[in-house]
Amino acid sequence: MTSFTPLDPDFANRVRDSFERQQFMKTLGATLAAVEPGFVEIHLPISPAVTQQHGFVHAGAVASIADSACGYAAFSLMPVDAGVLAVEFKINLLAPAKGDKLIARGRVIRAGRTLSVCQADVVGVTGKTEKTVAILTSTVMTMQGKEGITG
Amino acid sequence: MTSFTPLDPDFANRVRDSFERQQFMKTLGATLAAVEPGFVEIHLPISPAVTQQHGFVHAGAVASIADSACGYAAFSLMPVDAGVLAVEFKINLLAPAKGDKLIARGRVIRAGRTLSVCQADVVGVTGKTEKTVAILTSTVMTMQGKEGITG
Amino acid sequence: MTSFTPLDPDFANRVRDSFERQQFMKTLGATLAAVEPGFVEIHLPISPAVTQQHGFVHAGAVASIADSACGYAAFSLMPVDAGVLAVEFKINLLAPAKGDKLIARGRVIRAGRTLSVCQADVVGVTGKTEKTVAILTSTVMTMQGKEGITG
Amino acid sequence: MTSFTPLDPDFANRVRDSFERQQFMKTLGATLAAVEPGFVEIHLPISPAVTQQHGFVHAGAVASIADSACGYAAFSLMPVDAGVLAVEFKINLLAPAKGDKLIARGRVIRAGRTLSVCQADVVGVTGKTEKTVAILTSTVMTMQGKEGITG
Repeated sequence: MTSFTPLDPDFANRVRDSFERQQFMKTLGATLAAVEPGFVEIHLPISPAVTQQHGFVHAGAVASIADSACGYAAFSLMPVDAGVLAVEFKINLLAPAKGDKLIARGRVIRAGRTLSVCQADVVGVTGKTEKTVAILTSTVMTMQGKEGITG
Repeated sequence: MTSFTPLDPDFANRVRDSFERQQFMKTLGATLAAVEPGFVEIHLPISPAVTQQHGFVHAGAVASIADSACGYAAFSLMPVDAGVLAVEFKINLLAPAKGDKLIARGRVIRAGRTLSVCQADVVGVTGKTEKTVAILTSTVMTMQGKEGITG
Repeated sequence: MTSFTPLDPDFANRVRDSFERQQFMKTLGATLAAVEPGFVEIHLPISPAVTQQHGFVHAGAVASIADSACGYAAFSLMPVDAGVLAVEFKINLLAPAKGDKLIARGRVIRAGRTLSVCQADVVGVTGKTEKTVAILTSTVMTMQGKEGITG
Repeated sequence: MTSFTPLDPDFANRVRDSFERQQFMKTLGATLAAVEPGFVEIHLPISPAVTQQHGFVHAGAVASIADSACGYAAFSLMPVDAGVLAVEFKINLLAPAKGDKLIARGRVIRAGRTLSVCQADVVGVTGKTEKTVAILTSTVMTMQGKEGITG
């Protein structure tokens, strides 16, 4: 594991403020559980509201929390005036997404000035057991000097 | 464009029934607007509930409707007793997802016995103008003989 | 199909010069068959040198010509002093890559100032018949002001 | 790290035999450096033959050794009569691919009966220093009962 030194010592509050403004995370019922330099963890309690036709969590909901975990992991290392934008992501679904809750853990693999590359894994938690249900890789862009694109 | 002959003449009802059971599509507010052999269109009205921190639609919500459009496009060509499962997908975000609504159009590129490959594009609709905001490619698996995995 | 106006009227020569310097294309035996604004076609004669263990063209060789076709499609639209760099790509293999030759056709989907998104399809040609064997999506970066990174 | 028990105790020879038949690896100059259950390492000496226009290793060559490392990592866990086929892969290029040689290390993340998911990282080696230049995720299919598709 690489360790990162954030450019902004107040990075955790900046991530939390931005996450609060992601209405879609509220719609899912997802919460921000941990923020470290280059690392973010998001929890999603499993309820019928996020399921697909077989009763598992919809791949899109799985991808949503993994994408946010990656984006905020990258954002934690960005300058104070920057905004974060998803460029692309790819997800492999490894097992049915089920259990009590999902946990997405996003990590920065490469922190660049313009582009960062991140990976997340998503586990399904049943009692004390974790099972990996998906892995995601994403490219994230640092936006600077774009009006309205901070956070 | 390839044209496909569905194995099940009742494919459209089968797709609609399965879509109805995707609680997550209801949570998003997405609707099934068109079903043809190897093609599905899903609409998502844009409301604050699906936005990220800059007020655009969250990449995860964009991916969710594109993934469902692809999955159901593939499902429309599957045998009557089959279930559909997402194996992986990849999305490129081309422009901020905004407007009155999003439309995801999923098409089968290759219909295989076990694996199908599909592509979707997602457009943001403002008045009568459409702008492409994302493209997605996915691999979808045909599940047969798995209890509880139909639809 | 979108049509593009190149920034550099001499774009075709610029693409051909750069392709000439891709030693790896020579190693493969690939040739540049067409250059238009936002579009490039590369041909690869099929010989044992590019095969995998079953006698089909190796997925890596298929990806190589598709990636180059995409990169040069994007490069054809870039300013005269820019260099082109692959950020990421994703390929789906649809059918065994075989025949007399492969043709990769790369097209720009979105031409951005910093990032462009392209798609390529690769067909296997046997006599007069074409069969799609792979589709690829890539993100390409415009590099400016980097010493040694032109072309 | 997960540890895997191979179905075929002779897996390493089976992998080496198949690799020998990948003419494309010989064309690149790549060699099979290590085979363990669910893990394969491939080395590529850097020479002009594998470079692109800026003198770095072509992204397609990087992807080729990473794809083979993933495919053979999955193949090492397959039954004795199975063949291996790449379904799709995605690569992120993190840094210019340069140095004395490249090393691709492929690992199985999920070993399924039909589909396996693998990841590889590729490092550029200069003297004793390694730098990660790319990460790749792939889906690999187990082929059984297909004439001519063993190995």
